[in-house]
Amino acid sequence: MIKVIKIGGNIVDNPELLQQFVKDFASMPGMKILVHGGGVMASQMQKAMGMSPVMIEGRRVTDEDTLKIVTMVYAGWCNKHITALLQAEGCNAIGLCGADCNVIKAVKRASVMVESLGHEVDYGYVGDVKPEGINTSFLYSLLEKGIVPVLSAINHDGEGNLLNTNADTIASSVATALSQYKYRTVKDVCHACQECTHCSDDGRLTHETELIYCFEKDGVLMDKDDDNSVIPEIDKAAFEKLKSEGVVADGMIPKLTNSFKAIGSGVSRVIIKHARNLLNSKGTTLI
Amino acid sequence: MIKVIKIGGNIVDNPELLQQFVKDFASMPGMKILVHGGGVMASQMQKAMGMSPVMIEGRRVTDEDTLKIVTMVYAGWCNKHITALLQAEGCNAIGLCGADCNVIKAVKRASVMVESLGHEVDYGYVGDVKPEGINTSFLYSLLEKGIVPVLSAINHDGEGNLLNTNADTIASSVATALSQYKYRTVKDVCHACQECTHCSDDGRLTHETELIYCFEKDGVLMDKDDDNSVIPEIDKAAFEKLKSEGVVADGMIPKLTNSFKAIGSGVSRVIIKHARNLLNSKGTTLI
Repeated sequence: MIKVIKIGGNIVDNPELLQQFVKDFASMPGMKILVHGGGVMASQMQKAMGMSPVMIEGRRVTDEDTLKIVTMVYAGWCNKHITALLQAEGCNAIGLCGADCNVIKAVKRASVMVESLGHEVDYGYVGDVKPEGINTSFLYSLLEKGIVPVLSAINHDGEGNLLNTNADTIASSVATALSQYKYRTVKDVCHACQECTHCSDDGRLTHETELIYCFEKDGVLMDKDDDNSVIPEIDKAAFEKLKSEGVVADGMIPKLTNSFKAIGSGVSRVIIKHARNLLNSKGTTLI
Repeated sequence: MIKVIKIGGNIVDNPELLQQFVKDFASMPGMKILVHGGGVMASQMQKAMGMSPVMIEGRRVTDEDTLKIVTMVYAGWCNKHITALLQAEGCNAIGLCGADCNVIKAVKRASVMVESLGHEVDYGYVGDVKPEGINTSFLYSLLEKGIVPVLSAINHDGEGNLLNTNADTIASSVATALSQYKYRTVKDVCHACQECTHCSDDGRLTHETELIYCFEKDGVLMDKDDDNSVIPEIDKAAFEKLKSEGVVADGMIPKLTNSFKAIGSGVSRVIIKHARNLLNSKGTTLI
């Protein structure tokens, strides 16, 4: 089993939540990867330096100066701070951006039509990530040694440019790519994991892969104002129904759409939960 | 042969020099490690954010806010920018700080007496690095796979704190530690390097290790105002003589003292040269 866990900026920004999360994450056995967002620090830095953050439909427009700031904040402070905290808890973490050992190659986004504005927008140094861009053999070589990759949302295009990417997409792309990675023939013995259950047609093994999104809610809620209304399990059909009824709306729609795409591509399940519930079974499981 | 190459902030700050250096460095065959300084960007960031950089005897006093800035600049932008440029040149670089896989553990510096001030100074989140703090087996496992570590001057104490360290000292500590690292018994064959020349007493092999400091001068100069007065070779006795004559002075004294300490501890030679001369034989060789 490989677990890919994504934490959002709200956890990175909150020292107490982050410390508790780090302790819980470090205590989890088995192969695991952490993907983190950047929080509000990048916007704060931009403002402190007299720059004006430009967000269009929730995505940051990234010019050259903005790229420097987000790289400094995400791949610099956030990534190294989390890595140092994990090391202190005995978890052998390694903080990476996509350029490191070419672990994630992204594609610079072409200008896109933004319906709400009625014209095309060039998001600048923004990259899109797909499972094909993930260096699974390198990631697996780390996991196999008990090393825990900590991935920031900064990647590269292979031509010398860093690109700002979406952390949710990184998490689902990494989980999808690893779920498809054939790491050994059945004749071999896996020393790192005792749970090799999947045997693909050509006689090579893949790992069961789980994707966990930790955010500021307890899960997908029936009533967005009632934290006790967590829906424990949602399958594709239930998702379509919840969407048509308007129960699942706004930012939750792309999250769930991407999650079901990951499940359709090899990920065993996606769990959406509050960071404080990492070690218990609370939250919403998508199957 | 393992080469440990350190570049200073003057190269990191100069896009043309950096691009040329990256091309040259990428083209060098064999096992190599890059250590980089941070340049003036950290001070610029501090000023832009209304902070006042405090330097005492050329060393930055690092409070919590300053630590965030230097981590962002050194381990974030500089480290990832250089790594992405190297990847674009076909060099499989991995950018690391000391917390990553615990590659360098530093010790927080106690308050020290500063003679020029006449009182003790607490430098804050500043760490000292020694060869014992270098995770040689991890570094070697990367080198052996053809991966090129790119080290920033940010390290950790193993208790969750990041520490600002001196890039020159990192370079000499890494070179010293690797020169002593016994990577194989003589019975084994080394696939990574065809130059295994050293055979230690207990029958295990070490690599010949070279430390190269690239800076803004052509080498150690007989006359500091004449770039053509490079001294090609200096041994320990010549160094003592040059020091007593005042030819070697100021910042060059600790650099050379540390270099001869590294040579006395296993490093084969130290070369001091201009970054543009990386691939030729110009510069000063300390033996």
